[in-house]
Amino acid sequence: MISADGVVSNCRQLITCRGPLPKRGEALQDLGVIEDGWIAWSGGEIVFVGKGEDFRKEVRAVPSATWIDGRDGIALPGLIDCHTHLPFAGNREHEFLLRLKGLTYQQLAAQGMGIQTTVKATRAASKDELIALCKQRLNQMLLTGTTTAEAKSGYGLNLEDEIKQLEALRALKGAHPVDVVPTFMGAHEVPPERKDDKAGYIDLIIDSILPAVKARGLAEFFDIFCEPNIFDLEETKTLAEAARSAGLGVKIHADEWAPIGGAQYAAESGAVSAEHLINITEDGVRKLASSGTAAILLPGVPFFLMLDKKAPARKLIDQGAVVALASDFNPGSSMLSSMLLVLQLGVYTLRMTIEEAINACTGNAAYAIRRDAGIGSLEVGKRMDLLICDVPNYASLIYQLGVNPVRHIIKNGRVVVRAGKIQPL
Amino acid sequence: MISADGVVSNCRQLITCRGPLPKRGEALQDLGVIEDGWIAWSGGEIVFVGKGEDFRKEVRAVPSATWIDGRDGIALPGLIDCHTHLPFAGNREHEFLLRLKGLTYQQLAAQGMGIQTTVKATRAASKDELIALCKQRLNQMLLTGTTTAEAKSGYGLNLEDEIKQLEALRALKGAHPVDVVPTFMGAHEVPPERKDDKAGYIDLIIDSILPAVKARGLAEFFDIFCEPNIFDLEETKTLAEAARSAGLGVKIHADEWAPIGGAQYAAESGAVSAEHLINITEDGVRKLASSGTAAILLPGVPFFLMLDKKAPARKLIDQGAVVALASDFNPGSSMLSSMLLVLQLGVYTLRMTIEEAINACTGNAAYAIRRDAGIGSLEVGKRMDLLICDVPNYASLIYQLGVNPVRHIIKNGRVVVRAGKIQPL
Repeated sequence: MISADGVVSNCRQLITCRGPLPKRGEALQDLGVIEDGWIAWSGGEIVFVGKGEDFRKEVRAVPSATWIDGRDGIALPGLIDCHTHLPFAGNREHEFLLRLKGLTYQQLAAQGMGIQTTVKATRAASKDELIALCKQRLNQMLLTGTTTAEAKSGYGLNLEDEIKQLEALRALKGAHPVDVVPTFMGAHEVPPERKDDKAGYIDLIIDSILPAVKARGLAEFFDIFCEPNIFDLEETKTLAEAARSAGLGVKIHADEWAPIGGAQYAAESGAVSAEHLINITEDGVRKLASSGTAAILLPGVPFFLMLDKKAPARKLIDQGAVVALASDFNPGSSMLSSMLLVLQLGVYTLRMTIEEAINACTGNAAYAIRRDAGIGSLEVGKRMDLLICDVPNYASLIYQLGVNPVRHIIKNGRVVVRAGKIQPL
Repeated sequence: MISADGVVSNCRQLITCRGPLPKRGEALQDLGVIEDGWIAWSGGEIVFVGKGEDFRKEVRAVPSATWIDGRDGIALPGLIDCHTHLPFAGNREHEFLLRLKGLTYQQLAAQGMGIQTTVKATRAASKDELIALCKQRLNQMLLTGTTTAEAKSGYGLNLEDEIKQLEALRALKGAHPVDVVPTFMGAHEVPPERKDDKAGYIDLIIDSILPAVKARGLAEFFDIFCEPNIFDLEETKTLAEAARSAGLGVKIHADEWAPIGGAQYAAESGAVSAEHLINITEDGVRKLASSGTAAILLPGVPFFLMLDKKAPARKLIDQGAVVALASDFNPGSSMLSSMLLVLQLGVYTLRMTIEEAINACTGNAAYAIRRDAGIGSLEVGKRMDLLICDVPNYASLIYQLGVNPVRHIIKNGRVVVRAGKIQPL
């Protein structure tokens, strides 16, 4: 008999998202649904996934085991938000109001607002302030289903403040139920004091900040904003090569506003992911589709910025790319912390199928942050990260708008949300 | 001194929405914001709205008074959802999935699905089942800020089942904190058994169902779906005149799919409201703008149906129409119960200003269901229906997506939601 210290019994649907990762094409249509499914875990690791009759034959729950009755709901893997800019200070509501009056995001940036506004506020904040802000935001994210979140620095843009952001992320470990996966994004923008010396700033990143990040083990990934007025393709390559030499996985903000080859370079150089892709070209789609680079789509951005143009999710999926979805949570272009809403926007605005969207927020999102060995599906041997939602079936997660159906959350085998309330650590 | 049995003190912003109703043009830009505002009530009626220094001079709270500290949040009038199809049974998730595969709403209707699916389920449900479903849905609506909801029948389409729907609505009085305003909408569709005898069905409505609704006092309004394949303009006029003779206010579903003069007729005949208006003509806009008929816009519909075309909110507002927003909560074209999301969609997808959208969900929505004498703003003499939200200012209600900021709700002077939880009646 398998011993278990936790059991979720009798879910109307247990959405396992099982199968090899990453998922492409037809595999994205499969959620591995088990009707009336049971799942059991021990020490935070899944030990059984299946039907009740097999559970009774194969598993013995220890007397102190946690039991949760899934009868009225469904269960699915905890959602993974694989692209956020979590550790920032301040907000950009003022700029949001200016956008409502007709100014574009680019016009605001040209007036010294945009990312620079947040750089100013983040530099002025202490590490403890950042930690407190991150915890508040992670609470919101958790309540709408996020159990793991990637988080980028990139509002410090100097040694001290990039390190401060990344140290704030490190301090969250054990201090909040959501697992945070840190990305160093010094190459998010050129800081104001280096406006006329971009080459010098690139040197600073490569020669000073990156080695410090590496030495302290503060990041797993290195992200670059590859855009005409930020880092061009050659600069992107230089930065990416330095990151690879330092042993960090490369992520690229590519083709958000203008396609200058970022998606192609990501695919050809074996980057972990290319992100945004609103303006990706046909060639970019083909290159990504034939690569192992994840295409991370961020439907909150066109919604928040009120743009008609969106990333070509259907083309990417139909040609075989590895598509993941994420929030891009940030104060300027996507003040959206809910992966449930991201899932819905994936269907309603990117025209993904419900199954594709769920796989894009679970297994493929895990792959996009290199966590697919441990999370992203409900399979024996993986970590027990699971949501129980008050809906009759998984399609209702998308069909019912404006309701939060997340009832209970189990993170790494521990009940962290019960009846919609975060439990004390 | 004024005596009060309830006080909300010291809100960062008290959004009063004060001023004559309906609001048009520039008046829609004004929310009557009081910084550090206080509000007090007695017997469910507002007795003071203003600053703390004046409160202390003018008001004496009774010893047993309810006190709520608004220090960390803002307060605004309870939101009014002035267009819902609340009392239905079943769901249309299956049709939603077919739409995701490319079928249009109209194609589904042509295949006997659409409204007819819900008619079948609603006829099969008992009144008690409908009451239970309504309560569940009103709970969801309340938690996202709705304190008053209009609700239409129109899934019975015969004497017995229309009455059953309206009696279910009546049974909610006193049984749920949300006030429900009933509309008889037998003219929602032609029932299947009358498919070849629309004239006979119109006679049935006028000669049989309407008098019964009237005799039992079951509805305040009469709504007609004025569309080419449902009720044409002449049929709409016939129905509207019968309703007016019976003393019911007339509402018209107009220009949702095709403009056949519904908006113009609504304006010229003094209808209470014209609703939907996705395909309204320039002439329709002009006629509505110079009338007292409210234009109720339903941004959930194009979102849910994934349509690019939306009601021309800017044109309507700029020309001076009385614009209100509502959810159109129904299982086929807007499975959206949250007025908070409606407010956000009004800004993000209809390009209304934040102030216009808030006024459209409060004062103008009250006007659109003829409740403006009692609710829709926070003014002395009105009912105490108020939300306290965990945001620093009202723009954050729109700026922060995917978070539910509603903390406490006071309905008719009673705290009905505390810390996000519905209180027992």
